[in-house]
Amino acid sequence: MNVQGRHYRTIWLNPDDTVSVIDQELLPFEFRIAVLRSRDDCAEALRRMTVRGAGLIGATAAYGMFLAAREAPERGWTEHMRAAARALEATRPTAKNLEWATSRVLAAAARAASRSELVELARAEAQSIADADAECCRAIGLHGLAIIKEIYARKGGRVNILTHCNAGALAFVDYGSATAPIYAAHDEGISVHVWVDETKPRNQGASLTAWELGNHGVPHTLVCDNAGGHLMQHGMVDLVITGADRVTASGDAANKIGTYLKALAARDNGVPFYVALPSSTFDWSLDDGVVGIPIEERDPDEVRYVGGLCEGRRASVLICPESTRAANYGFDVTPARLIDGLVTERGVCKAERSDILRLFPEARS
Amino acid sequence: MNVQGRHYRTIWLNPDDTVSVIDQELLPFEFRIAVLRSRDDCAEALRRMTVRGAGLIGATAAYGMFLAAREAPERGWTEHMRAAARALEATRPTAKNLEWATSRVLAAAARAASRSELVELARAEAQSIADADAECCRAIGLHGLAIIKEIYARKGGRVNILTHCNAGALAFVDYGSATAPIYAAHDEGISVHVWVDETKPRNQGASLTAWELGNHGVPHTLVCDNAGGHLMQHGMVDLVITGADRVTASGDAANKIGTYLKALAARDNGVPFYVALPSSTFDWSLDDGVVGIPIEERDPDEVRYVGGLCEGRRASVLICPESTRAANYGFDVTPARLIDGLVTERGVCKAERSDILRLFPEARS
Repeated sequence: MNVQGRHYRTIWLNPDDTVSVIDQELLPFEFRIAVLRSRDDCAEALRRMTVRGAGLIGATAAYGMFLAAREAPERGWTEHMRAAARALEATRPTAKNLEWATSRVLAAAARAASRSELVELARAEAQSIADADAECCRAIGLHGLAIIKEIYARKGGRVNILTHCNAGALAFVDYGSATAPIYAAHDEGISVHVWVDETKPRNQGASLTAWELGNHGVPHTLVCDNAGGHLMQHGMVDLVITGADRVTASGDAANKIGTYLKALAARDNGVPFYVALPSSTFDWSLDDGVVGIPIEERDPDEVRYVGGLCEGRRASVLICPESTRAANYGFDVTPARLIDGLVTERGVCKAERSDILRLFPEARS
Repeated sequence: MNVQGRHYRTIWLNPDDTVSVIDQELLPFEFRIAVLRSRDDCAEALRRMTVRGAGLIGATAAYGMFLAAREAPERGWTEHMRAAARALEATRPTAKNLEWATSRVLAAAARAASRSELVELARAEAQSIADADAECCRAIGLHGLAIIKEIYARKGGRVNILTHCNAGALAFVDYGSATAPIYAAHDEGISVHVWVDETKPRNQGASLTAWELGNHGVPHTLVCDNAGGHLMQHGMVDLVITGADRVTASGDAANKIGTYLKALAARDNGVPFYVALPSSTFDWSLDDGVVGIPIEERDPDEVRYVGGLCEGRRASVLICPESTRAANYGFDVTPARLIDGLVTERGVCKAERSDILRLFPEARS
């Protein structure tokens, strides 16, 4: 992803072994790099949501384990590293990528014969986790690019793509999942334009997706979550691509609340609807997503209040009577029958068990 | 509609021939009555959106014509009244009810033989227009009540109703269109609970519908516009009722942007979807609403900014980068095939030409 004309990842290791991240708490109103110098800094960045998004959370935890290795005592570092893993995992109890990343660095660290070797092994593993995340998204982009190219060739003009929430570079180390094919197309000179759903309640579309597309130079227009049906009815959308928080073995996709409504509109208007995901998003243990995926209820004040910039300062406004109760469901499940395809790092498959297993045969067991 | 335990219309004539309205600019954070003493006051109330909603706009224009009659000269009042009509109509160029109401009062005034008779005739016509609006909505409520009663009897418990935007008492003289059946059920002791869509971009659900349901004592919960699909997937909605801005002769319904998405979700989950409307909302000249109804594009800043209350003061926050472009489509069209029925003041009919004409045979010509 480019920011102000320069390529950035969302997280990277500096030559002095500190870790830099784009401070996402300040977006979209301020672009600032935060420097993380310790395991504690990483934990705090996770806790405060300076970093967010599954891929980036994993990479931050991995780099946190590397910084923990640098802080390790000459003897007894095993317990030190285990404590670091527990501390990092505790910052975001529901983020599965945290434990996955800390476990990988712990396993690498277990091979160390000396403290200096511990640091080298942890650094290499953290780098490998971050690189693999970016590479995975890049591959998603190339596979999704073929879909955009096909529409571009058929239509002979600009491809209008609608996306919901932020499944962008900011949620990963680079490229994003839903945005990766968009960046790939734009970088190849294919004319694309993105309808960005604002994505209430937290407006990650308006604040994050609009910000990163704008910085990368991809033409886009912000719309209310309510607008997508109208746009599709009038031929203004050629393709819908969203990310996913969890996808079942049969292809049902849990994603930010409201995704299902866009999938219904896409089907009603013959617009192709794709879900882009790294394969780590598959939950092989589940089949029926509507029944099986628990939907988190979040703080109702996320619905009652809206945050933004007011006269140059961050502020939050109440949009309903003070006494009004609200409910805040974080996600919904789009049934596989409404999904035209899943775009993964190994290729595109139908949202059905047999075709998913064709790409991921190791999941048969 | 009750407010703070007392029945209110949104507009009424006082014994001293002034006109009172609920000041909707201040809602939902302050309940205040504005007194309109002149035609100019009425024009200003229309222009500033102190009053809004088709039915209420018509009644305000009618009372404005009555106040104009009181200001009329002893001779030459015909031109005075025509000028008053033009002034009132100019306040909201796209509100069709304005001209309808001023024309009715002008026609009544044409029968006056004296200035005092002019005032009496204008007062009577304005009162009649306001009473008819309230009575029309009351009738919609009684016809819609039968639908709620049937669900209540079948389910044997609380009926959960989802609504979008404000088609409430605040948009009419009393009762509302979509809310009228809800108030009727609640007042009869039938247990109802309303899911209130916040209804971006202007949040009339969060600010107006939540306010009036709360004041009338109807249990309700505010949700994001994104939530309805999830609620319907999980059996949490028994019925959807919305209002309409224009309905074609074959039953396609234009309403606030996002209504179509809820109709799709209702159909996908077997939830009945009804549109409530006074018959003045029919556009007998149109058939295909998706093709024929022009959709207004409004100020993009309604998407980029959100208004509300911040530290006790009205404020507006920017939710996206300053440079982000937005598009703001005001309405969408729900095709008749997704509508289970139209609830009018004459009864409930299917959303199809022949059944609409059964209720409104005079429209055959």
